Amino acid sequence: MVALINGQSADQLTITDRGLNYGDGLFETMHVVNGRVRHRDLHMARLQRGCQALSMQFPDRELLDREIDSLAAPSAHGVLKLILTRGSGGRGYRPPDAPATTRILQRHAYPDFPQHYWRDGVRVRYCELQLARQPALAGIKHLNRLEQVLARREWNNPDIVEGLVCDQKEQVIEGISSNLFIVVDGIVKTPDLAQCGVAGVMRQCVLAAMQAKNQAVQITTLTKSDISGADEIFLTNSLIGIWPVNRLDQHRYHVGPLTRDLQRHLSCYG
Amino acid sequence: MVALINGQSADQLTITDRGLNYGDGLFETMHVVNGRVRHRDLHMARLQRGCQALSMQFPDRELLDREIDSLAAPSAHGVLKLILTRGSGGRGYRPPDAPATTRILQRHAYPDFPQHYWRDGVRVRYCELQLARQPALAGIKHLNRLEQVLARREWNNPDIVEGLVCDQKEQVIEGISSNLFIVVDGIVKTPDLAQCGVAGVMRQCVLAAMQAKNQAVQITTLTKSDISGADEIFLTNSLIGIWPVNRLDQHRYHVGPLTRDLQRHLSCYG
Repeated sequence: MVALINGQSADQLTITDRGLNYGDGLFETMHVVNGRVRHRDLHMARLQRGCQALSMQFPDRELLDREIDSLAAPSAHGVLKLILTRGSGGRGYRPPDAPATTRILQRHAYPDFPQHYWRDGVRVRYCELQLARQPALAGIKHLNRLEQVLARREWNNPDIVEGLVCDQKEQVIEGISSNLFIVVDGIVKTPDLAQCGVAGVMRQCVLAAMQAKNQAVQITTLTKSDISGADEIFLTNSLIGIWPVNRLDQHRYHVGPLTRDLQRHLSCYG
Repeated sequence: MVALINGQSADQLTITDRGLNYGDGLFETMHVVNGRVRHRDLHMARLQRGCQALSMQFPDRELLDREIDSLAAPSAHGVLKLILTRGSGGRGYRPPDAPATTRILQRHAYPDFPQHYWRDGVRVRYCELQLARQPALAGIKHLNRLEQVLARREWNNPDIVEGLVCDQKEQVIEGISSNLFIVVDGIVKTPDLAQCGVAGVMRQCVLAAMQAKNQAVQITTLTKSDISGADEIFLTNSLIGIWPVNRLDQHRYHVGPLTRDLQRHLSCYG
């Protein structure tokens, strides 16, 4: 791991940081290809929305870009994880009057996903954990991720690649670390994230791609029965791009033409 | 601040720790008086329940006690904050197969609360933020505390000492960093915490004290109208003990006999 904290080479953070104490911060996981961050502006825009939601100060964009470039440039294929926290201090939960955002940037190797995840699709399951509905935190990628940790602990079978999570009204929301799309009778649908879930950058790319083709996408509530009746299912996130789903619990699915088309359009092969 | 990480004097933690990345951990805030931790066994028992809820390994108790003693002993009056995290590693949200719990222990000065908070009571308000209902995390003192940070940002008036938070069904749950009790017609009532909230150590002491006196306590759902009709209101946590509430938004309350009696019984003067 190579890392910068506030622009300085470092891999240790003070234990008074609010990121550790309260999860008081945000993060982005970015895909680096040939030294460049894919969809950088979309990541920065989401981070900025997160800062607004948490009333945190977004760092100087040029400074952030320089730091990102310095870690991204030497990497042919990798992952940059950027954490922003509200910094140190404050008495208890109350933030300090003039908090200084901490920038933590880490470079990791790209995960060794098998090529067939993109080609043939992945097997997924439903998780038992239900996401709490919290509109104040919905959509943003904040550091309070215990629900995801608990959901990911529900299985060990390495053949199962992702878990789908529902909210407490039994609406299917997302994958643990991905967004969910289905195709029904040629219509693309993805869950509404107003109450919970993370609005992913690759989800946004898919929505934009569909709009560019003048094809409708329904952002809506989806039940398990909607999902099991789907013609195609796929997952998105910034690292994987688009993975078709070929099996969900006992249901099997074909990799469909719309999924393939979006993979090509968004250059989402592994 | 004086601090130990895994028993070693240190105040910096690796940025790969899951406590920072996901809030994947727990904490306890303990009151030190004359070098001794008050209600140590209750704190350790709650921490152990938290470890069970998150499937984290509880550290060796003797080891933990030695570390706590070494920081508590020199302190006439202070605060020990103990954080346990699931340590470093794992790919994404998935915990590593054999995670090593990180122990982070910090000693802080006791806050400079005015004496009249205990004597005359405190002014509190309702927060607008509503707590999400998540039974998988309810009751335990985990590191995902963004709701509390957001709620605490709602006011700046230093005369208002605490905020009360409701859940999304408009049931009053707790103070941002305290538990809530009311007295109605001689009956003590406190909110049920099965869906959200932190089950505090001092709350447990009050429940035990009432049981020892053979006095009933109702652990129940409470609405704002239940609260506004109360004869006495008080707040509890490990640092404050018991603070009477003398004002909640526009409603004013007397410091009542049952509150006083519990303060005496539990040695809760400042």
